[in-house]
Amino acid sequence: MTTPAPNPTIRRLDVASPVPADIDIANAVEPLHIADVLLSVLDKLQGQQDGYYVVVGGITPTPLGEGKSTTTVGLCQALGAFLDKKVVTCVRQPSQGPTFGIKGGAAGGGYSQVIPMDEFNLHMTGDIHAITAANNLLAAAIDTRIFHEASQSDKALFNRLCPPNKEGKRRFADVMLRRLIKLGISKTDPDELTPEEVRRFARLDIDPASITWRRVMDVNDRFLRKITVGQGPEEKGMVRETGFDISVASEIMAVLALTTSLADMRERLGRMVIGNSKAGEPVTADDLGLGGALTVLMKDAIHPTLMQTLEGTPVLVHAGPFANIAHGNSSIVADKIALKLVGKGGFVVTEAGFGADIGTEKFMDIKCRYSGLTPQCAIIVATIRALKMHGGGPDVVAGKPLDHAYVSENVALVEAGCVNLAKHISNTKGYGVNVVVAINKFATDTDAEMEVVKKAAMAAGAFDAVVCSHHAHGGKGAVDLGVAVQRACESQAEPLKFLYPLDSSIKEKIESIAKFYGASGVEYSEQAEKQIEMYTKQGFSNLPICMAKTQYSFSHVPSMKGAPSDFVLPIRDVRASIGAGFIYPLVGTMSTMPGLPTRPCFYEIDIDTTTGKVMGLS
Amino acid sequence: MTTPAPNPTIRRLDVASPVPADIDIANAVEPLHIADVLLSVLDKLQGQQDGYYVVVGGITPTPLGEGKSTTTVGLCQALGAFLDKKVVTCVRQPSQGPTFGIKGGAAGGGYSQVIPMDEFNLHMTGDIHAITAANNLLAAAIDTRIFHEASQSDKALFNRLCPPNKEGKRRFADVMLRRLIKLGISKTDPDELTPEEVRRFARLDIDPASITWRRVMDVNDRFLRKITVGQGPEEKGMVRETGFDISVASEIMAVLALTTSLADMRERLGRMVIGNSKAGEPVTADDLGLGGALTVLMKDAIHPTLMQTLEGTPVLVHAGPFANIAHGNSSIVADKIALKLVGKGGFVVTEAGFGADIGTEKFMDIKCRYSGLTPQCAIIVATIRALKMHGGGPDVVAGKPLDHAYVSENVALVEAGCVNLAKHISNTKGYGVNVVVAINKFATDTDAEMEVVKKAAMAAGAFDAVVCSHHAHGGKGAVDLGVAVQRACESQAEPLKFLYPLDSSIKEKIESIAKFYGASGVEYSEQAEKQIEMYTKQGFSNLPICMAKTQYSFSHVPSMKGAPSDFVLPIRDVRASIGAGFIYPLVGTMSTMPGLPTRPCFYEIDIDTTTGKVMGLS
Repeated sequence: MTTPAPNPTIRRLDVASPVPADIDIANAVEPLHIADVLLSVLDKLQGQQDGYYVVVGGITPTPLGEGKSTTTVGLCQALGAFLDKKVVTCVRQPSQGPTFGIKGGAAGGGYSQVIPMDEFNLHMTGDIHAITAANNLLAAAIDTRIFHEASQSDKALFNRLCPPNKEGKRRFADVMLRRLIKLGISKTDPDELTPEEVRRFARLDIDPASITWRRVMDVNDRFLRKITVGQGPEEKGMVRETGFDISVASEIMAVLALTTSLADMRERLGRMVIGNSKAGEPVTADDLGLGGALTVLMKDAIHPTLMQTLEGTPVLVHAGPFANIAHGNSSIVADKIALKLVGKGGFVVTEAGFGADIGTEKFMDIKCRYSGLTPQCAIIVATIRALKMHGGGPDVVAGKPLDHAYVSENVALVEAGCVNLAKHISNTKGYGVNVVVAINKFATDTDAEMEVVKKAAMAAGAFDAVVCSHHAHGGKGAVDLGVAVQRACESQAEPLKFLYPLDSSIKEKIESIAKFYGASGVEYSEQAEKQIEMYTKQGFSNLPICMAKTQYSFSHVPSMKGAPSDFVLPIRDVRASIGAGFIYPLVGTMSTMPGLPTRPCFYEIDIDTTTGKVMGLS
Repeated sequence: MTTPAPNPTIRRLDVASPVPADIDIANAVEPLHIADVLLSVLDKLQGQQDGYYVVVGGITPTPLGEGKSTTTVGLCQALGAFLDKKVVTCVRQPSQGPTFGIKGGAAGGGYSQVIPMDEFNLHMTGDIHAITAANNLLAAAIDTRIFHEASQSDKALFNRLCPPNKEGKRRFADVMLRRLIKLGISKTDPDELTPEEVRRFARLDIDPASITWRRVMDVNDRFLRKITVGQGPEEKGMVRETGFDISVASEIMAVLALTTSLADMRERLGRMVIGNSKAGEPVTADDLGLGGALTVLMKDAIHPTLMQTLEGTPVLVHAGPFANIAHGNSSIVADKIALKLVGKGGFVVTEAGFGADIGTEKFMDIKCRYSGLTPQCAIIVATIRALKMHGGGPDVVAGKPLDHAYVSENVALVEAGCVNLAKHISNTKGYGVNVVVAINKFATDTDAEMEVVKKAAMAAGAFDAVVCSHHAHGGKGAVDLGVAVQRACESQAEPLKFLYPLDSSIKEKIESIAKFYGASGVEYSEQAEKQIEMYTKQGFSNLPICMAKTQYSFSHVPSMKGAPSDFVLPIRDVRASIGAGFIYPLVGTMSTMPGLPTRPCFYEIDIDTTTGKVMGLS
């Protein structure tokens, strides 16, 4: 499968055609040992200069995906194994739900994959499980606290929260001191609190209707979308409607992705808001006594996991937040470590989830805002297939055969679809970075079709537009892309220009993003108005905005392809992840818990009990 | 903290008095690196002779626990660090629920602990998280399958389960062939099935009321004990009452503990029964297409985790099934590996959960039955405190100060309480092993009290009875126990005598165990009768019995201390873990989901963000 290469960690692939199944390609390579990369590496490399920082976004995709992950991996294989550059790939860890559901794994594909592919798609080092555990401990604490507050007097509650020790002396746990500060009570001896202070301290008085914290599970379990809890006789009728999200939708995942250090993570986890008191004050994880314990549960998850591409270049896998209700980018911590590890002249390539309107926008306005890092180059991955769809081609539906238009030459459709690419290019250029278009070539694409895309890309202001074939050829198929990216990085000098300043109002920020999408205006529901008012009153209006919108259109309507401009963006609701640090307006309904199909992927997944090899992962 | 010792992996402790907090003792020692022990070690050591096999049980405990784990660890520290024996400790991994709830950790205590204590009590290598993921994937598959069957014709269902490929050809997934065999259909080409066969194959026709498979979570979340799922609009009114158990109560945990190889685990996971069809046939995980995928999720969990005692002797941590609705013993796989690793003349010491009436009974009749291993010595841990309780002392309540009777000499109470110890000794001797009593000494116990226990133990047929002080002194405090255990093992030659043969009826087996408890008879509820009849009809009557009974009495009534004999054991219900391989009669109500108190342990748990050290774990 592999032939010797100059650098001992680099592997050269002997590729086959047609491209075999992903798991077969992955299983044929013997990976190096996987390890955690400790966050403390950052301290050791403090003096080191950062490498070039490259973000991979895409045009508005078809439901089949246009190969952003594959391009990210292929580009790094090219830079590391063929262009002799120091390179680190930074990607998200996928949820286990889709692995066993419809979609299968997310390690790239063909000859551009992260390996070991089975570990990548399964538990890996347990970060998502840690998030599940932490998320659900907080959920259990909320319902139990409401239950205990309902049945105890202020004094009894306080006695239980601060019990006297053998000598009759009480003390506050450290986390309780945070609540006292929040309440403006400057005492540290429990016995000195007045009855009124005891009440304010001990009673969180959570309004059950205001609770936004849901339980999570890393499984596609649609029957948990809406449930009623507390129906056991011991819970004395304190039933409540709630539901489960898939674990990667947990705010804790977004915290992990946006944190910059262990101390920062401790603070973010503690200030996560789970709902309001009946008086309308936000109630936090620290109010419930949990900020420290949640950090303990997440202490290993903060270290990125080192993996590798098929051609032996290093990959840091870390965090995997949703791209709609969260910001869809892998962790700041991994990028920072990687930039120091590659050093001056090296490359860090990271992927931003969904189309560039969502992924790249959030990469710039949320992730780079919190990290302080500046990218030199943004890639936009385009396929002839998706461009044809934007040009008016028939619907592309997962699981159904592609229409003839997609598998034979149709230059006119491609040409018409380039409006979508052009808008992504001009939008992304607005951040002050060089934009390189990667045309992810499929076997049925023709030279004439690709020529049209190149021309349109350059006309729209791209730094370069390059055809690549890394799925079929590994890094070798992305060498031209690698060269273009290197040139783009070397010629970049502008500072990062954010789309909006943080200190403008929530509505002003939403409107900036809507304009960026091409909308003619924004429409707020009553609920959205109410929430914006509440968050503003609570002092959270200075957070960045994380739009929860479909990836299948610049607009809120998946069927509006191309680059629509005659739409008013409707804001149905506005929510917030205060600990992670963003407000997320909901444009339409977002599913946060997938379902299983009648015949899920798990039917094919099994293990060879003799060799221990996993079979049937796709 | 430590002084040099002869063997480089052995550490000598400098003990302090009074004994510091567990986490402080644990944090003061720099552990060796933790690793997985691969199951394949067994193949390599096939020719090796087994060492001695020692099980640690206890008398009927107080709610404070009598130190079984601490004694297990202390004994091994004595054997390894002071008596120069090869020794491996095999213990269960604790649930994370209690760590953050009331009880705190479970790594032993004082100078007899498993370290790193924080890893031991937290995620460790993720085995419990793997169980949660596998358990809940199966749960999601059940509800979704019922949903899909309700809305599709036989033909549509079959078309989705076996979709034609591009060439129009259908194939069965491997796991589907298992269902065909079960149905007596010997065809392997989907196109050859008759419409009737299509119906039988595609329709599991699960009776929702019969579903015994619940979801799990490794969190003390009492509000999930009873819930209603499926209330989302997309689930079209298919609501169902169900609930969550804590993850360690999952049948998959019991499977992990009782399996003997990867191939065996694959079979056990596939034959787990989740409920019945409307016609009363058991429906299995393999019927749902999941046996392989569940094994893939559990592929790393099957390898035990190597940890260490404070004095540097090796510990294999593996599996942690409940001791009531499951069998409460760590894994067969770990014991088998350990017995080969220590070899002839070495010692493997494992703990059996709850009192000896439950833990040791299940160790012998379930675990040893499946493993084929024979123990040479059974330890019964006794404390003066618990014996006084059995002798008529006042109630012992967790969280409340102990009555004077327990902290000052009272020989008469101890003497009266020895009936409990004596019954455990004679019961355990019945298996044909030598019984050594370990008197776990507390600071307030007097010589006269301990002398009474020794005498009573010898009179009841113990091989030896030894005072030990490993909590205060580490291995040094258990040297006498180590010597006694060695003598007991060396003088043991009898084969293991099970309490009942497998081929007797379910009722005969239950009655054997009831008699062993001292009951005068057994009483079955209507529901229990119905279930026994059903399991017998389904062909499961030849499985061993796993009694779900309180550990606080030989009887079903926790307040009946000593050695009661005038009670009739009531069997409220009978359930089964077919994949794990046992029937479990319920004697009273068993809680399978703990709750959080008003002030859970998590209030004290935090991390030092500078050093990364965990604080406040108990």
